[in-house]
Amino acid sequence: MPLIYAFDHRHRRPPRELAELLGGKGANLAEMASVLELPVPPGFTIVTTACRRYRDGGWPASLDVELGRHVARLERRAGRRLGDPADPLLVSVRSGARFSMPGMMDTILNLGLNDRSVRALARTTGDEAFAHRSYARLLAMYGRIVMGVEAAAFDEPFEAAKAAEGVDDDARLSPRAWKELCRSHKAAIRAAARKPFPQDPHAQLRGAVEAVLRSWDGARAVAYREREGISHDLGTAVNVQAMVFGNRDDRSGTGVAFTRDAATGEDRPYGDFLVNAQGEDVVAGVRITQPLAALADEFPDQHAELLAIMDRLEAHYRDMLDLEFTIEQDRLWMLQVRVGKRTGVAALRMAVEMTTDPAIRLTRAEAVGRITPDHLDQILHPRLVGDDLEPVATGLAASPGAAVGAVVFTADDAVAGAAEGRSVILVRKETNPEDVHGLLASAGVLTSRGGLVSHAAVVARGWGKPAVVGAAAVEVRERSFAVGDVVVAEGDTISIDGSSGEVIAGAATLVVPEPPPEFDTILSWSDQIRRGKLAVRANADNGPDAARARAFGAEGIGLCRTEHMFLHEDRLPVVRQMILADTPEAEAEALEELRRVQHLDFTEILEAMDGLPVTVRLLDPPLHEFLPKVADLDLKAATGGLSPSEERLRRAAIDWAEENPMLGIRGVRLAVLKPGLYTMQVRALLDAVRDRIEAGGRPDVEVMIPLTVSAAEFELARSWVVEAAEELDITSNLLIGTMVETPRAALVADELARHADFFSMGTNDLTQMTFGFSRDDVEAKMMPAYVERHLLEGDPFHSVDVDGVGDLVRTCVARARAAKRRIPIGVCGEHGGDPASIAFFASAGLDYVSCSPFRVPIARLAAAHAVIAQKEGRLAGANADR
Amino acid sequence: MPLIYAFDHRHRRPPRELAELLGGKGANLAEMASVLELPVPPGFTIVTTACRRYRDGGWPASLDVELGRHVARLERRAGRRLGDPADPLLVSVRSGARFSMPGMMDTILNLGLNDRSVRALARTTGDEAFAHRSYARLLAMYGRIVMGVEAAAFDEPFEAAKAAEGVDDDARLSPRAWKELCRSHKAAIRAAARKPFPQDPHAQLRGAVEAVLRSWDGARAVAYREREGISHDLGTAVNVQAMVFGNRDDRSGTGVAFTRDAATGEDRPYGDFLVNAQGEDVVAGVRITQPLAALADEFPDQHAELLAIMDRLEAHYRDMLDLEFTIEQDRLWMLQVRVGKRTGVAALRMAVEMTTDPAIRLTRAEAVGRITPDHLDQILHPRLVGDDLEPVATGLAASPGAAVGAVVFTADDAVAGAAEGRSVILVRKETNPEDVHGLLASAGVLTSRGGLVSHAAVVARGWGKPAVVGAAAVEVRERSFAVGDVVVAEGDTISIDGSSGEVIAGAATLVVPEPPPEFDTILSWSDQIRRGKLAVRANADNGPDAARARAFGAEGIGLCRTEHMFLHEDRLPVVRQMILADTPEAEAEALEELRRVQHLDFTEILEAMDGLPVTVRLLDPPLHEFLPKVADLDLKAATGGLSPSEERLRRAAIDWAEENPMLGIRGVRLAVLKPGLYTMQVRALLDAVRDRIEAGGRPDVEVMIPLTVSAAEFELARSWVVEAAEELDITSNLLIGTMVETPRAALVADELARHADFFSMGTNDLTQMTFGFSRDDVEAKMMPAYVERHLLEGDPFHSVDVDGVGDLVRTCVARARAAKRRIPIGVCGEHGGDPASIAFFASAGLDYVSCSPFRVPIARLAAAHAVIAQKEGRLAGANADR
Repeated sequence: MPLIYAFDHRHRRPPRELAELLGGKGANLAEMASVLELPVPPGFTIVTTACRRYRDGGWPASLDVELGRHVARLERRAGRRLGDPADPLLVSVRSGARFSMPGMMDTILNLGLNDRSVRALARTTGDEAFAHRSYARLLAMYGRIVMGVEAAAFDEPFEAAKAAEGVDDDARLSPRAWKELCRSHKAAIRAAARKPFPQDPHAQLRGAVEAVLRSWDGARAVAYREREGISHDLGTAVNVQAMVFGNRDDRSGTGVAFTRDAATGEDRPYGDFLVNAQGEDVVAGVRITQPLAALADEFPDQHAELLAIMDRLEAHYRDMLDLEFTIEQDRLWMLQVRVGKRTGVAALRMAVEMTTDPAIRLTRAEAVGRITPDHLDQILHPRLVGDDLEPVATGLAASPGAAVGAVVFTADDAVAGAAEGRSVILVRKETNPEDVHGLLASAGVLTSRGGLVSHAAVVARGWGKPAVVGAAAVEVRERSFAVGDVVVAEGDTISIDGSSGEVIAGAATLVVPEPPPEFDTILSWSDQIRRGKLAVRANADNGPDAARARAFGAEGIGLCRTEHMFLHEDRLPVVRQMILADTPEAEAEALEELRRVQHLDFTEILEAMDGLPVTVRLLDPPLHEFLPKVADLDLKAATGGLSPSEERLRRAAIDWAEENPMLGIRGVRLAVLKPGLYTMQVRALLDAVRDRIEAGGRPDVEVMIPLTVSAAEFELARSWVVEAAEELDITSNLLIGTMVETPRAALVADELARHADFFSMGTNDLTQMTFGFSRDDVEAKMMPAYVERHLLEGDPFHSVDVDGVGDLVRTCVARARAAKRRIPIGVCGEHGGDPASIAFFASAGLDYVSCSPFRVPIARLAAAHAVIAQKEGRLAGANADR
Repeated sequence: MPLIYAFDHRHRRPPRELAELLGGKGANLAEMASVLELPVPPGFTIVTTACRRYRDGGWPASLDVELGRHVARLERRAGRRLGDPADPLLVSVRSGARFSMPGMMDTILNLGLNDRSVRALARTTGDEAFAHRSYARLLAMYGRIVMGVEAAAFDEPFEAAKAAEGVDDDARLSPRAWKELCRSHKAAIRAAARKPFPQDPHAQLRGAVEAVLRSWDGARAVAYREREGISHDLGTAVNVQAMVFGNRDDRSGTGVAFTRDAATGEDRPYGDFLVNAQGEDVVAGVRITQPLAALADEFPDQHAELLAIMDRLEAHYRDMLDLEFTIEQDRLWMLQVRVGKRTGVAALRMAVEMTTDPAIRLTRAEAVGRITPDHLDQILHPRLVGDDLEPVATGLAASPGAAVGAVVFTADDAVAGAAEGRSVILVRKETNPEDVHGLLASAGVLTSRGGLVSHAAVVARGWGKPAVVGAAAVEVRERSFAVGDVVVAEGDTISIDGSSGEVIAGAATLVVPEPPPEFDTILSWSDQIRRGKLAVRANADNGPDAARARAFGAEGIGLCRTEHMFLHEDRLPVVRQMILADTPEAEAEALEELRRVQHLDFTEILEAMDGLPVTVRLLDPPLHEFLPKVADLDLKAATGGLSPSEERLRRAAIDWAEENPMLGIRGVRLAVLKPGLYTMQVRALLDAVRDRIEAGGRPDVEVMIPLTVSAAEFELARSWVVEAAEELDITSNLLIGTMVETPRAALVADELARHADFFSMGTNDLTQMTFGFSRDDVEAKMMPAYVERHLLEGDPFHSVDVDGVGDLVRTCVARARAAKRRIPIGVCGEHGGDPASIAFFASAGLDYVSCSPFRVPIARLAAAHAVIAQKEGRLAGANADR
């Protein structure tokens, strides 16, 4: 295989599909040069294979020969020769990897200049300043990048020269100053590198190419790839291209353009242009650019040519493009093209409009494929905007969206503030069930402790409220909090961004997005694509949440956590009464009271989800979650003393305290020890079902037993449900299934499937148990170090761990379906709203995912992506590069 | 298939192998009658199939026909007919299941008597009292068992009759009294059952057989089977046999005999005999029995005949037997034979002696197969003896053996008491690392809190000290403890049994067993059998334990827990110094100090295990285990205030506190966050290796990384070990492997195996994570209810869960060996000492088990059993029935 291809090489496949070989930049240059025959300065690409070989065994021997041949060909095409003392060819040497790594790798311009050819350039251009400025630039770049000289060695004399001539724009420096700079740059190189700048242009080229190859393993590039999760093994390509000069004169210039508006999606070209300038000048933002339309006045022909090229390119790529062009002495050159980045609003508008654009005619599946979850996220959550957002602290991004409000420190103050119509942000060390009314009243929450499954995080996500948790730098005091020297008092305004974890002192500007009409179009197309393959349900625990979920397009409830009903402040005392009951009668009385309130909750939910399935999980958490902490009561006992009822609470708290609550007595285990509990819940649920039927509704209920480990355990729990149903004479259409959240449940899925009507994979707990990771303990403290050092491929609580947890999911599905071919298997829990996980679940053959109401639109989209990808025989997410 | 077989039916297979069909009793009766042609009263067995059919669909139609035919045949064989008014045949109807269920099921004697035949019996025997006594017995038994009359209805008139005649032995009652009792019994039946006692002997038989079949599902029998883990589906057989009367006259009698001494194993017949008595009289113990030898005087011929039969039976069964016989008017009848129960000492002696007994010639494998783990346990641990042991409390049996000693309540008092030469028992709510010196000084330990993996339990098992933990009824006070009204003060003597969990107030008699010489013989034979197949190592953390393990026959150390070295009271301060260090220098200094002491520990261990492999697990527990509890410090802060150093401890304790320590930052995770830790440990270990080599020893070290979840994590840890080894220039023979204790490690075993030199399955933690069971939390509170209700097949921490955890073990082995064919895989942790688990591990293809030193002999035996069983194509443990 050759190591170099000219841009105009006729590849067998379209070059833009060869980015792995040619790099992104090289692939698109080749597409323009060889397929579209657009005006691209001639050049060639050294492929990524060369970089990989270089990393393994140094400069490949064959590269010299190929380089020589391609330089000769380039010289012929350009009609000039490298180092020609009469009319020298100048080239640029640029890296170009498969994935864009902006600013991370090196570029060398004006290569080919030396002490002799610089004079030729001055002569042919008649511009001595231009020629020596170009040479000085080469010397500084080459000295720094290839020969390892400190940048300061070039910057200081340059600044001194500007000072000496009293100019602040380098374009104004005199030819004499530039000449002097060339001299001093060469001297600086000799002094620092202990050898002179190579005058031989071929030696320059070899040095520059090697430096670019070397820069792949430079510290900045490595760190960038680590952060972005790009493989170090890809290697970079190197593009060598004849120079064109937008800064040659006033009939020259350079610009960037988009084929459509990247911010709004509007179908009109858009861009910036600078006369007599190079690309860097446009990007640097020092000179004021002109809009693309202005080009029509000064360069009408080139403007028309450019628009025609943009039309051709867009029709060819069938997408919005971002391109760079240069005009050199009235001649238009295309320097780069790529698919353009865009906002969420723009992405939606473009995708929908391109389905009817006669030049493009996207299919609906293609349009859906153009939208990323990030695009939707931008539309679904408020954001903080402003250039000067200086966070005082950063915590875990626990629930997306942003909020601005006055700081309060207690749940009651939050309620009071909200009652006065103020936007408040609740700041706590951590929250607990007694703070729930405060969370509900707040615009957002900030805690200094806890991980992504802490109470505050889970509740906030459920309600779609922004939350920053575990911001360890925040020291929460009585009526203020401090971050280092900054003290924020009660009533002061702060801003939090639950998507980034940032906390800002003061009021940032909050942008509340308005979904464009294309939002619903894309989601309805997504639904058409995934219908019958992967359903999307929501996790919701009350009527309003259920209604919201339905509005977001949920096709049912996959997880209704009944414990959330227990945590309301008016119910907690009744739950405690049940726990403390010392006679069966007292317990029964408390259970009856709970039954009454749960009945109302269930009725509301079934009404909101009428006609759609509602999966109700019976009580899951351990009882001590409903009790005060032993340590707090002990402390009170030692200081102020306990009332008799507090003393009873303390004894109960001791009885039910656990070393490892995650692995303790909860779920069906608790029900085995407290047999009235589940019966009560089922009665409440079935009463609600009967009420709904009597009201003409179509309730569709699935009862789910949590934390099952054996078929016998499930059978016992099932018998309680069946008994209650028989008592109440409700038999129609009642499914009884189980969570699969222990590794054992997945392993004995065949046994369980013989008894269960459905499974729901609880991949949160399954992940905790499969890794032995207590999310509360490891996520904040350990996970960053683990992900950064690649000890794990990613945070397995964010995207499901395909090798370990995924293996259990696949085993579960295979064994369950071997025992009961059509048993419905879904997934509830947070992975159900993560696009990469959704792609895996689709490939594993699950029937539905369930996620928080606010993730439903994203899950609908991701599920469609997964279905499209499956059809194409790949895993979804591999194509997202815009 | 017939439902009935006569005892003398010629089966194709030896009848004693047909216990599943014939029941245990019936199989052995048939063996004696049909194969050996011994004098067995004629009869037949209704097979267990009939019982199963009866349970499913009531009385099988074909049973009537078969019963008629077999009764007719029995009448012919006996020469008498059922209900014959001249000379009636009498029969017994007895249950006889596959497994012995003593006293649980029903028996009816003297069936065939009625108002007419009783007179014939009186006539033919010339003994009116005997005849009516036999009839009265039938009426009482039949009335109670078949017709459901309360026992009191028969007992009360019987007691009244004895009172009236002034006798206390029923044999002395007058014929008139017996006749009267027959009358009153019949009246009682008529009154209670509202129908008369059936006079038709065939109706009696049918009723009796049905009652025995029914009794299989009687409450007592069901409860017994639940407790003993016997399947309800087996069903019972029913044996119908001609009656012989040991109580006929003074030329009659009955007895039980053993072919060898069941207590000592000595090869001499042994038994008890009563003249003019029935079986019940021997068992009841009211009359004083004569030794078997005395039979020679009164019944010399029968004595000789019996001894000859016993010889034949022992040679035939090739085992020690327990048999019942009756002499009726000088004629010897064999009524039952079975393999005899025996003590551990006797089992060992018999097994070894039978290998050279020319009539038996056991192979060594058979001899080893005759010994059960329980036999060895009896020999390895002290026991409490006495008939009147009344426990005041019962806790969890946490470490086997027993102790008697004076109660102390602090570790220091334990040390002081032991220094005075007193046996002391340490009583605490729970123990912690600061109590370790007290545990070491005590004869045993009793705690009121904690489960089978609590600190006290684990430490005690490691040292082979008896321990009862989690005895919730024990209320520990300052200088006493109370159980209800019983108060035990400091210095009072108590006795504890760590095998049963019993706590006895006062001094029980302690028997300290002395292993007989056959102990070593059997174990060395076991070793020959398992050599090269399943090795046995020990878990040991210090030199003395390692030496003890070696003495018990361990072939290396499979788990050396280095954290135990950290817990010594003189080291804890250094560990805390390391945790509290706020500069790298202070941390390095503490680590260096720890390195020094660990070096000494390792040297001792390597010396004790010279030439054998020693697997050293690097630090596993979370750091907070080395810190005081936050709540305790908070309490102190609120009451007395904290010193600055305590305040620092408190901050550290808060920093390192965890919600779920089992799933927290421990093992290799901790090492990733505290990188100096493992390097220090490896240096200490390798220093010790070098010292040992220099001293001419042959250290054989395996370094084990705990809690691995990914290959990258293992590789990082491995690199630390390799680096330290290279620094110290030690390269020879250093294996680096990992624990497999998270489900994920088992699932990605192929990846791990590519990097690891060996695996050790940590099935304790694997069980906790696979089930989601925190052993500390669920074992005491939940497991009893779960096992009792059959929600689990057994406590998975006791015997490995073959379906779930075992599936992960098999997956791990298969995937690991697919990647590295000969990778050694062992198991450490408590399952390694459990016979049933050892059998599974052998079948799963593991290379070794590792257990506490005191379990090593049992593991050696169980491993041999597993190897024998594998050869025979079955799982070990299925043959143990003695």
